[in-house]
Amino acid sequence: MPNSSRQLKLGFILHGVGPGWDDWRHPDAQVDASTSLKFYTQQAQTAERGKFDYLFVADSVSINARSSPHYLNRFEPLTILSALAAVTDHIGLVATVTVSYTEPYNIARQFASLDHISGGRAGWNVVTSWLEGSAANFGKAEHLAHDTRYRLAGEYLDVVKGLWDSWEDDALVRDKASGQFLDPDKLHELNHKGEFLLVKGPLNISRSRQGQPVIFQAGSSEDGRNFAAKHSDAIFTHQDDLTEAQAFYADVKARVAGFGRNPDEVFILPGARVFVGTTAEEAEARYHELANLVSLENALRALGRSFNDHNFSVYDPDGPFPYEVAAEGAKSNQSASGRIIAIAKAENLTLREVALRVATPRGHFVGTPETIADRFQQWLEGRGADGFNLFESVPGQLELFVDQVVPILQARGLYKTDYPGTTFRDTLGLAVPENRYTAARKASSAA
Amino acid sequence: MPNSSRQLKLGFILHGVGPGWDDWRHPDAQVDASTSLKFYTQQAQTAERGKFDYLFVADSVSINARSSPHYLNRFEPLTILSALAAVTDHIGLVATVTVSYTEPYNIARQFASLDHISGGRAGWNVVTSWLEGSAANFGKAEHLAHDTRYRLAGEYLDVVKGLWDSWEDDALVRDKASGQFLDPDKLHELNHKGEFLLVKGPLNISRSRQGQPVIFQAGSSEDGRNFAAKHSDAIFTHQDDLTEAQAFYADVKARVAGFGRNPDEVFILPGARVFVGTTAEEAEARYHELANLVSLENALRALGRSFNDHNFSVYDPDGPFPYEVAAEGAKSNQSASGRIIAIAKAENLTLREVALRVATPRGHFVGTPETIADRFQQWLEGRGADGFNLFESVPGQLELFVDQVVPILQARGLYKTDYPGTTFRDTLGLAVPENRYTAARKASSAA
Repeated sequence: MPNSSRQLKLGFILHGVGPGWDDWRHPDAQVDASTSLKFYTQQAQTAERGKFDYLFVADSVSINARSSPHYLNRFEPLTILSALAAVTDHIGLVATVTVSYTEPYNIARQFASLDHISGGRAGWNVVTSWLEGSAANFGKAEHLAHDTRYRLAGEYLDVVKGLWDSWEDDALVRDKASGQFLDPDKLHELNHKGEFLLVKGPLNISRSRQGQPVIFQAGSSEDGRNFAAKHSDAIFTHQDDLTEAQAFYADVKARVAGFGRNPDEVFILPGARVFVGTTAEEAEARYHELANLVSLENALRALGRSFNDHNFSVYDPDGPFPYEVAAEGAKSNQSASGRIIAIAKAENLTLREVALRVATPRGHFVGTPETIADRFQQWLEGRGADGFNLFESVPGQLELFVDQVVPILQARGLYKTDYPGTTFRDTLGLAVPENRYTAARKASSAA
Repeated sequence: MPNSSRQLKLGFILHGVGPGWDDWRHPDAQVDASTSLKFYTQQAQTAERGKFDYLFVADSVSINARSSPHYLNRFEPLTILSALAAVTDHIGLVATVTVSYTEPYNIARQFASLDHISGGRAGWNVVTSWLEGSAANFGKAEHLAHDTRYRLAGEYLDVVKGLWDSWEDDALVRDKASGQFLDPDKLHELNHKGEFLLVKGPLNISRSRQGQPVIFQAGSSEDGRNFAAKHSDAIFTHQDDLTEAQAFYADVKARVAGFGRNPDEVFILPGARVFVGTTAEEAEARYHELANLVSLENALRALGRSFNDHNFSVYDPDGPFPYEVAAEGAKSNQSASGRIIAIAKAENLTLREVALRVATPRGHFVGTPETIADRFQQWLEGRGADGFNLFESVPGQLELFVDQVVPILQARGLYKTDYPGTTFRDTLGLAVPENRYTAARKASSAA
């Protein structure tokens, strides 16, 4: 695809009370948003009005009394997205689900079911759960090592994709006259026997009209980048500035090509917390309104989340960042903790400065609608991104974005003015993957 | 509760293409019903118009090319019921989920999430998967023995109920002024360490307005009856006639009392496949129209389902029933296979007769709207049932039932004319279970 025809992909992250520790304290915040179907429905329908490519639901599988409000009490992704499927028509539905504490047969089924419920709009953000506390909720003595987790994830994803192909697209004959419901030659057992998993199949649900759900991934480590480049259709990433984003983009697209895949068919989508204002000052004021809600105590807790729930309150907040905690970071979220340490070192920040920065990331998307559109265009054309995963920063920002930024992007030809088809793959311009058994049949009859 | 005030509870089983092997061949059947959100939505909204207490979705976790069409390809229960939660307002939503191949933390979460999505309308039909083929989809060498499965189920349910109580009802302070989101003393770890399970908690979602989802169970064996009597709020059962139903009803209600529970708060709900007609002859004709769709081959397969997928086609269909297969039945569905063997013996049936009877059960609910209402009243007042789980026999029967039978039941005072509240527990007249930690706190402060 030539550069000129590239258009931004946009996702919206449904975050309930918001991704920050104290976002819920904003005067306009709805404190029970994280378990309100009405709130989620309104956001979903607003994002669909703005022709967003997809909704995205993040996840985790353990909490404690020191966790951030938006982790503490919230919907489970597959169930809330199934509900939203019934009240939306076009927008993709991406659920985060861990491979560490689930059965591939169940997960393959639930995603395939969501895919049918939504008429082909499901997506799966594949994660390997990164909090040590999670293992204890699943009867496991310890969390798997980082490289083992990615090996398991690869095998798990192979199994799920295999189960999704259990049914060839013409397996369901359903001829009332003859009484034949199924062509048994077109229903396939997987018979997987691998390092970690043993799964027979077939799956008890057929493929949807998009063939298979779209795969998202968010790995940033060496293992994570390779996993994402090999397996995923879209990569959710965190990038602090355009230069860094360009390096990541080039690196991952090269890896994609290295796996024999088309780099134009794997989308790199940094997170973007947008603060839109009528003037630059108003946008800045909105950022500071949010940042000022955060206490040092909560900022330190937020920081701990990337370091295996490490307790940072024991250090002097105005002293240097305690670099000895790096090992804790490596145990849980290697990429997030590594990024934080790199910034702390580069700018010689105190612990307080690091914590407040992590608690309310400012990013590069604070300004007027034109400024936001300019930045998006710059990142797209500069090959720092194929699009963005938007967070709502303060309540009302999604509406502002849809009403004020989207029309500018559309006028510039950088963003679609309508959905091109019905499925998530249609929306992204991705082909329906051919069923592996159908492909094998064709290959053998051609030989 | 005095006898006179008892009212029927009614559930509707969402079966897609229908529970019988060849139901999909009916001229009015929609062959893709099992994966059609539109079909499910129409049935759900019709049942809600008829003031049904709940929708019920059955399940299984393995298929093969010889499985019945309605098992082969269908929605997963938690996802489809989450979607239906968004398009209904009052009806309960009961999902069948196995304890054999799932993690209690995930299941507790998904049900709690459905419970919030629906505003307190979730129910869980707890099953121990009864097909040996299932184990191979979950990396297990063999299926657990019958008594072990029930021991696991009891422990599993204790864990899930414990996780559901993780949050006391006033744990969420959410005071913007003080910045307190959570009262940490009201968020509880479960710290379960049992024979089968090790689960720390707390769950990352609070209780809904009904406190906990309603528990359904369908055990009929000795172990199963005790499990249901001890743990469940409603019992789904199969009963061939009123006398047998009365014996089951009396037995289970006595067991409920034996566990120190109130027998009026555990509902016994036999399945009912209703054939309504303007005249008795028309109703009979509808039954025969369906029964005549079934081939002997499919009837034998349907029979095999209760006998560990035993292949009955190797026997002479007009010879006696091969009683030596009882051992296969005991391995999978003990109660269903035992019931079939008992009938075959009592009536000295041939294999063909047994198979056709199993494939299209006739039951006692074939007739005019008045006849159906009479039978329901007889079973309710005769204490053979507290209500029924309805199957749609042939397409259009749910509409007929809602439009013609429900008004008669309402006129007789046997059935509610509107939903009494908003939650499933409100509908059933069940109290919100007090949070265990709140109860302990009250007990200790009273002491």
